[in-house]
Amino acid sequence: MIKADSPALLNQAEEMIEWLSSYGRTENNGVTRLLYDEKWQKAQQALKGKMKEAGLAPYFDDTGNLYGRLEGSEKESSVILTGSHIDTVMDGGKYDGAYGIIAGIIALNFLSKQYGQPKKTLEVVSLCEEEGSRFPLTYWGSGNITGLRKKEDIEKAKDTNGIAFNDAMNKAGFGLGQYAETKRNDLSCFIELHVEQGEVLERENKAVGVVSHIVGQRRYNVTITGESNHAGTTPMPYRKDAVSTAAELIHHLTQKAKKTDPAFVATVGRMEVTPNIPNVIAREVTFSIDIRHSEEALLEAFSTSVFDEFKQICEQHQTKIHIENWMKEQPVKMCEKLSAISTAILEKENIPYKVMTSGAGHDSQVFGQYLPTSLLFVPSHKGISHSPFEHTEAADLEKGILLLIKVLHNLAY
Amino acid sequence: MIKADSPALLNQAEEMIEWLSSYGRTENNGVTRLLYDEKWQKAQQALKGKMKEAGLAPYFDDTGNLYGRLEGSEKESSVILTGSHIDTVMDGGKYDGAYGIIAGIIALNFLSKQYGQPKKTLEVVSLCEEEGSRFPLTYWGSGNITGLRKKEDIEKAKDTNGIAFNDAMNKAGFGLGQYAETKRNDLSCFIELHVEQGEVLERENKAVGVVSHIVGQRRYNVTITGESNHAGTTPMPYRKDAVSTAAELIHHLTQKAKKTDPAFVATVGRMEVTPNIPNVIAREVTFSIDIRHSEEALLEAFSTSVFDEFKQICEQHQTKIHIENWMKEQPVKMCEKLSAISTAILEKENIPYKVMTSGAGHDSQVFGQYLPTSLLFVPSHKGISHSPFEHTEAADLEKGILLLIKVLHNLAY
Repeated sequence: MIKADSPALLNQAEEMIEWLSSYGRTENNGVTRLLYDEKWQKAQQALKGKMKEAGLAPYFDDTGNLYGRLEGSEKESSVILTGSHIDTVMDGGKYDGAYGIIAGIIALNFLSKQYGQPKKTLEVVSLCEEEGSRFPLTYWGSGNITGLRKKEDIEKAKDTNGIAFNDAMNKAGFGLGQYAETKRNDLSCFIELHVEQGEVLERENKAVGVVSHIVGQRRYNVTITGESNHAGTTPMPYRKDAVSTAAELIHHLTQKAKKTDPAFVATVGRMEVTPNIPNVIAREVTFSIDIRHSEEALLEAFSTSVFDEFKQICEQHQTKIHIENWMKEQPVKMCEKLSAISTAILEKENIPYKVMTSGAGHDSQVFGQYLPTSLLFVPSHKGISHSPFEHTEAADLEKGILLLIKVLHNLAY
Repeated sequence: MIKADSPALLNQAEEMIEWLSSYGRTENNGVTRLLYDEKWQKAQQALKGKMKEAGLAPYFDDTGNLYGRLEGSEKESSVILTGSHIDTVMDGGKYDGAYGIIAGIIALNFLSKQYGQPKKTLEVVSLCEEEGSRFPLTYWGSGNITGLRKKEDIEKAKDTNGIAFNDAMNKAGFGLGQYAETKRNDLSCFIELHVEQGEVLERENKAVGVVSHIVGQRRYNVTITGESNHAGTTPMPYRKDAVSTAAELIHHLTQKAKKTDPAFVATVGRMEVTPNIPNVIAREVTFSIDIRHSEEALLEAFSTSVFDEFKQICEQHQTKIHIENWMKEQPVKMCEKLSAISTAILEKENIPYKVMTSGAGHDSQVFGQYLPTSLLFVPSHKGISHSPFEHTEAADLEKGILLLIKVLHNLAY
């Protein structure tokens, strides 16, 4: 059993997550740490101290990513990287992102104490940004490390107070060439430990999720245009009712999604009705569609056929339809070899696990486009995330860290 | 043919409607005349002058209803009343209400010129209020004449500027006992000529609608409560999705309404989604339902069965439902005898007509609960109403007035 060789160090995971959440704690007992803001700066500085205490060599890169390095004996070796992001959504949870950083620090500390210097260099990273909560841009940390993001991406970006992205970055001391070069060509792989942010593991009584794919996703705005009319004087057959059309479309979408594949999801989360008056037949409805799956071909086939069917339904209702696709992200496959290392360990340790897709985006989605990447989940209680009520049991946190230790040991020693 | 004995007077209908619309004309070429406001006061005063020119004896009652009286030779006879309302919605049309007043003035003028003094006394009324556009209260004119409305109804009512109903009334000179008693016990019947505010007559090429019933209506707020969750990480079977539940309910409602009866209408005009974010499964949806029909039993049966079905659908979606009924108005039957007089005239004159229900409320709905009442429609172009684009062809306006003349002649001479 993994539990057998767990030292006192592992019990600190919960305490350290609590400690990190004090940087940006809100009155709801949530956490708000936005890229480059004061709480964010203090959290990164505090983590730098923790890395040092853990026997790691800490350093910033010029974008604000913070690394803790455990040098390998094979000097020319490429670097095995683990970690996650330090930023949060507004009033988010303690675990999202933070867990992966804390787990990485504990794992590297544990490995060096238990096994001494590794052959391969290990680094833990506290990525500066993933959520897109301050500026309308996501994956600023992993995006700069891999080269996905460019300086031009932020030229016009401002936060809700009108502060320019670049000014905020400079004010925090970054983007001025004072720290290490951000783009890296020396990484051999990336391993991210994260809370699931869903309830699949908890419902199925699994301790760990080994992610095979991060799903692709497409988002649409659908606008139905009918005709406003008097709710009393317009017989049903004369109506061009945008609400009843939209209702039929959304019902059809949901039914079709359920039949398509157990892992396929389709969501209508936003809906606006015009003029939105009880006794007036609606002229216009706009609604969002978010569809996700691990196979691009299935996303393509689903959207093609469902939108054909939408058009037929609209014709029957004498309404017009306009479909706008404003997001199209490809699925990203995680590294099979790295997954196999994890599943072998989990089998051996007799820990219940599930090979699954991630329905949410993560930094692993960016790294996975450039280098072998593995994303590992621990359960989220009731699937609650991006909320002060986000919670993962201490025992689950520890199981995840022990798995990370064993994987890193396998790769670096 | 009716047209044959139409004098020059009848051609004035369009011109007089245009003239009346100058009191309260908006920049969109619509009309805004709200109860007791300056435009309203000027319009009533101007109409008083027109009534005098038309040989009628004008007088106000203490609520602000304006009458024009053509005294009958049978002194003890009860009064035959025709007319409609002078107030409008915000930026409404020229014809809604105004047409019935103008038609009444022209008809009484015509009758006295053509046939001299009637046996029965005829009055035309410009009712002070029907729309509920200034204060949250409708039918203030007909409601006071019949006794449906009480002083207590307005005690707390204020307009959007915080002006109390009673203060507005007093400022316009009413409610102070200076004019005739409002409540009347001397009326034998009420005949209202109005634009259809629907497109049934135009679509079916009918010149006149003879209303058999004003529909009953019920309005509901339906709230569906599910659970907010991540759109990517929550598999379809685990969802408690308020939007997809509401979509199925609304689709079911529409299908059922279409099958129930050709004259049955059901409308969902308002819908609010919480939290209304594209990538979050909605926790709550509230939507309105407006159902109307001329038979109370059918309204009752429909609502009972559809809400039973709603509950079953919500169980399947694992969502909760709350249904609030905030309006329940009984259908009102128009007087068959009066309708028969109209249809006999229309048959004889070979004017295409339709016996139909009124899906909208009118002052006739109030009078109809107390005395024999007839509501007669002329076509509304494209069914547009409560809009500056409200329009009725001059030829249709004239046909309606000629029918009114013939009906009043039948009753009063």
